Amino acid sequence: MPGRLSPVEIEARIELAALVSWAHSKGWAPGTGGNFSRLLSRDPFQLLITPSGLDKGSIEADDLLIVDSTGAKMRGKGNPSAETMIHVAIIEETGATVIAHTHSIWNTLASLRGDTYPISGFEMLKGLAGVTTHEHVENIAILDNSQDMVAFSQELRPRLGDSHGVLLRGHGLYTWGHNMFEARRHLEVLEFLFELNERAGRMD
Amino acid sequence: MPGRLSPVEIEARIELAALVSWAHSKGWAPGTGGNFSRLLSRDPFQLLITPSGLDKGSIEADDLLIVDSTGAKMRGKGNPSAETMIHVAIIEETGATVIAHTHSIWNTLASLRGDTYPISGFEMLKGLAGVTTHEHVENIAILDNSQDMVAFSQELRPRLGDSHGVLLRGHGLYTWGHNMFEARRHLEVLEFLFELNERAGRMD
Amino acid sequence: MPGRLSPVEIEARIELAALVSWAHSKGWAPGTGGNFSRLLSRDPFQLLITPSGLDKGSIEADDLLIVDSTGAKMRGKGNPSAETMIHVAIIEETGATVIAHTHSIWNTLASLRGDTYPISGFEMLKGLAGVTTHEHVENIAILDNSQDMVAFSQELRPRLGDSHGVLLRGHGLYTWGHNMFEARRHLEVLEFLFELNERAGRMD
Amino acid sequence: MPGRLSPVEIEARIELAALVSWAHSKGWAPGTGGNFSRLLSRDPFQLLITPSGLDKGSIEADDLLIVDSTGAKMRGKGNPSAETMIHVAIIEETGATVIAHTHSIWNTLASLRGDTYPISGFEMLKGLAGVTTHEHVENIAILDNSQDMVAFSQELRPRLGDSHGVLLRGHGLYTWGHNMFEARRHLEVLEFLFELNERAGRMD
Repeated sequence: MPGRLSPVEIEARIELAALVSWAHSKGWAPGTGGNFSRLLSRDPFQLLITPSGLDKGSIEADDLLIVDSTGAKMRGKGNPSAETMIHVAIIEETGATVIAHTHSIWNTLASLRGDTYPISGFEMLKGLAGVTTHEHVENIAILDNSQDMVAFSQELRPRLGDSHGVLLRGHGLYTWGHNMFEARRHLEVLEFLFELNERAGRMD
Repeated sequence: MPGRLSPVEIEARIELAALVSWAHSKGWAPGTGGNFSRLLSRDPFQLLITPSGLDKGSIEADDLLIVDSTGAKMRGKGNPSAETMIHVAIIEETGATVIAHTHSIWNTLASLRGDTYPISGFEMLKGLAGVTTHEHVENIAILDNSQDMVAFSQELRPRLGDSHGVLLRGHGLYTWGHNMFEARRHLEVLEFLFELNERAGRMD
Repeated sequence: MPGRLSPVEIEARIELAALVSWAHSKGWAPGTGGNFSRLLSRDPFQLLITPSGLDKGSIEADDLLIVDSTGAKMRGKGNPSAETMIHVAIIEETGATVIAHTHSIWNTLASLRGDTYPISGFEMLKGLAGVTTHEHVENIAILDNSQDMVAFSQELRPRLGDSHGVLLRGHGLYTWGHNMFEARRHLEVLEFLFELNERAGRMD
Repeated sequence: MPGRLSPVEIEARIELAALVSWAHSKGWAPGTGGNFSRLLSRDPFQLLITPSGLDKGSIEADDLLIVDSTGAKMRGKGNPSAETMIHVAIIEETGATVIAHTHSIWNTLASLRGDTYPISGFEMLKGLAGVTTHEHVENIAILDNSQDMVAFSQELRPRLGDSHGVLLRGHGLYTWGHNMFEARRHLEVLEFLFELNERAGRMD
């Protein structure tokens, strides 16, 4: 990375690359699947994001791109993913600053269910920000998959509600947090809950 | 860690942090879930315990707190978990000195069954202290989950019996040992038996 | 490796050994199972390939053999696998330059189904070269296993179609790519899709 | 290890400790479960074997005991396992020199079936010594578990036949080889086949 980067950007790059590497090591971003971002500045809007087509097992801090709120590349090599506008929509609707999009076996299985995926009765729900009891019902929206990600990113906005994630059918999970620690915890908690719920046969 | 710590406390901190790190690496304490403790002294009662809200993948020896028998913090940064009184109750009822509380896929699935989870017919049962034959029946109590952990810790006491663990419904496992080696072995053995029993469909 | 090897061959050996080591670490080539190859030259035909009978967890760059288009060994210690002619057939029919043959739990389970294994509806399909939508149907031929691999390699040719892999019943997967990165991605994507599809019970 | 050990014994100790460590890392010898041996000399009979009660994740080369054909300890710290006579019986009946006894989820599930566990139709069978086709049927005896291992070791002898392993109900697997490489391969192959067969629902 060139010396002109600010310490804040350098730290953001290192932490985001570490998130990608960790998610890949868990088997949640096989091959070139998944993408991950971190907001550098809300105004002007600057988003650090993984480029399209790279193996998520070998992303490094200086592979990350910076894009604006239209998804146009401001800086970096390679191209932003077509899904960049989903990141922008989530950031605008939820106030999140870190977004993780993963393709795991269990989140994909969960995404094959109906219109909403409800999870309740598990203590692990308390790992989600603001949840204080296992009696909470987490309703995660399931949207049909699409190849028009710009249109999809608009369709998504009203479905975000006050949940901590959203599923794309046959595709995977988007989750987020107000900081790196929260996003990472939400990802780990939701992946755990999808596996648990699917194995428990709750949805049958 | 300040130089004034006794060699016994330093060793206890290092061993307890190693137990947490190992349990996290196994996937039994995802995110900030789970908590772990080790008795430093029974009289006066001094318990070394993991603080609330830290990622169990990055707990180090000097992150651990010391609490008294009322759960009040005597030393350390951060706050004790609301579940501290469960550790105290188990120590007082069983004579154990090391407690592990984990949230795994298989122990949570097991915890969804009835009032007691019986395990029998497996050689692995002999890994539990005092068990000398696979014909042993291990009856693990399942208690309904609660958010009032002080009341719960009293309700728990008469259910401990002579078993080696207790399940909280939808929440996870508490197990223990009279030393670090025994607690670690009980945890590994019980996690194995829950997976085995659930996969064998014994409870259906 | 002797100093007389060309830089191209040295790089090919290192990359192919890394592919084998990675596939073994994933549990897709247990024991001595599986074989892997990389085309060094199409004319004259020179194929770098894993020898028969070695543990795939300990293959190194200089353990790899070079064979011609009849499967005869040109250089190296040990013997080519009886399955070498399957590699030659795939290279000739598809234009691929890297071949991976793996034995995983999930690809073997998939191979027990009928004559063709269709996969559709998953975003992960877009990890296969040329696939641009999750609406794609990937039809993977399943052929009965054989111990006459020379005859089998001829029978296989008309079944390759435009898919990205082929299954041998009760035996495993062959997949390939036009370069190392593509072959590795196809392997990771197909293994993911077999597990997903089998767990989803799609074929029932 | 004292300097007086022969190079052959030192190598045997290092290789056997590596086998134990590898099996533990795979999850096949949780806690203190399982035991492993290697014949040093058939006449006089000297067997290197894991002691009872040690964690299989931390066995080192100099923790291993030497016992005679009655199971009596000739050298080393700690005590031989009660199952030592099973190792002796297998060595005498099959000519094997390396024995592995593991407790895995899948071999324990397999051991819950009838009197014999037949496996057929899988290419992976060819990883077993002497098997040249996937049409081979591997019949693995299942014996009822016992706590009298001396009597059991006699009962076991006529059931070994020409198979490559034997299951104890609810307890685990014994497998073996004529050398370290073969024993390790048999273990890896059988563990793969048990998982495959169980997931395929072959025995239902």
